[in-house]
Amino acid sequence: MTPDVAAVMASAGTHVPAVSADTYAQILQFYARHMQLLDAGEAEEWAKGFTEDGVFAQNVKPEPWKGRSHIATSMRRGVDRLAGRNVQRRHWFSMVVAVPDSTEAGDEEAVRTQYYAVVFETPHGGKASVYLSTTGEDVLVRRSGRWLIKHRDINHDGS
Amino acid sequence: MTPDVAAVMASAGTHVPAVSADTYAQILQFYARHMQLLDAGEAEEWAKGFTEDGVFAQNVKPEPWKGRSHIATSMRRGVDRLAGRNVQRRHWFSMVVAVPDSTEAGDEEAVRTQYYAVVFETPHGGKASVYLSTTGEDVLVRRSGRWLIKHRDINHDGS
Amino acid sequence: MTPDVAAVMASAGTHVPAVSADTYAQILQFYARHMQLLDAGEAEEWAKGFTEDGVFAQNVKPEPWKGRSHIATSMRRGVDRLAGRNVQRRHWFSMVVAVPDSTEAGDEEAVRTQYYAVVFETPHGGKASVYLSTTGEDVLVRRSGRWLIKHRDINHDGS
Repeated sequence: MTPDVAAVMASAGTHVPAVSADTYAQILQFYARHMQLLDAGEAEEWAKGFTEDGVFAQNVKPEPWKGRSHIATSMRRGVDRLAGRNVQRRHWFSMVVAVPDSTEAGDEEAVRTQYYAVVFETPHGGKASVYLSTTGEDVLVRRSGRWLIKHRDINHDGS
Repeated sequence: MTPDVAAVMASAGTHVPAVSADTYAQILQFYARHMQLLDAGEAEEWAKGFTEDGVFAQNVKPEPWKGRSHIATSMRRGVDRLAGRNVQRRHWFSMVVAVPDSTEAGDEEAVRTQYYAVVFETPHGGKASVYLSTTGEDVLVRRSGRWLIKHRDINHDGS
Repeated sequence: MTPDVAAVMASAGTHVPAVSADTYAQILQFYARHMQLLDAGEAEEWAKGFTEDGVFAQNVKPEPWKGRSHIATSMRRGVDRLAGRNVQRRHWFSMVVAVPDSTEAGDEEAVRTQYYAVVFETPHGGKASVYLSTTGEDVLVRRSGRWLIKHRDINHDGS
């Protein structure tokens, strides 16, 4: 467990600040809608779920993707590669912990999340299986009434 | 992505109307309780989660099941077939997006959902695995304080 | 379906008392944080999610673990065994139904939950898979603003 993770999760014996039920429901639905876009192959629409200066880091990539435009282009390549393989992927996010993020000051509301994600994969005419398992940590900000990803850090299990 | 899906998901850049946190929590629990009934083999109780004129369509079936009574009878056959195979199935619904449904007018509250579902399967004495992966779209209506499925459309991945 | 399960799930045709959206969001996040601790190998911190006199029963164990201290010691052994195998497990809880528990009287708030859980497993350098599937039933109590497990009953599928 990284120090950062430890700080957010806090001790089970300590009171943990929480987001409201409204915010929690919004975030679960933001994740659902956002990943439904990706699994539908809508890489550019999916990239709009990041801030203009958003960062998408993964432990299986040498460098983070920085900026919405770069994120869109990079994911478009991934989506197109997958299209040639005729498999349907489904990204599931769950086990979401969301806490107010006081380090992201300024006027906007920010939330830090920690979650699990798995990807299921079904080949055309074939059987579904688990493709991979990860943990994730996001910094989300609310702008004009909707949530955007300012920073995402994905750690693939087994790497 | 079908036009219908696109309309509900809307662009990631557009404000999306949302149900309340109360309604969202109710729907998650309705799905949980409803599928717990099915996995317990209670086909008739499960069918009561549909309206009297409810419709259950699946892309792997030539015709939708229409009406609670027909849905109950059809699912009873599936449950009984499964009982002979000595496996335990678990239906998981997640990644649920819920939006108020203004097309279902009248006096009752209606919600349109989009979600992912997987079925896990464990044979007696054997190992759990993913049985299948689907997407789903429901029209739910609230009657006498509880949610019922008016229309369900399930699309199995890989079909 | 045991009579106990039947009582909590109630008929799909009957109004079911529900916890508030706030409580539901708290419980989902309690489960997320709690199992993130376990999967990080923090057995002692994880055990603090039980009451001092908490009980952890599983159908695959001859006897329930009784008391936070015994639960911590027993889980520590499991975590250490797993560490030698170089696999990462991820416990997912979902399909959670939560109802107020009126049988747990006294001054404290109590909730009874029913849920599904799966464990995903990824070996170092290997591929993720489903390790097992279970159902669970908890009695949770709220003390000093946070939820604790007073009684947990886990039933592994296929046993």
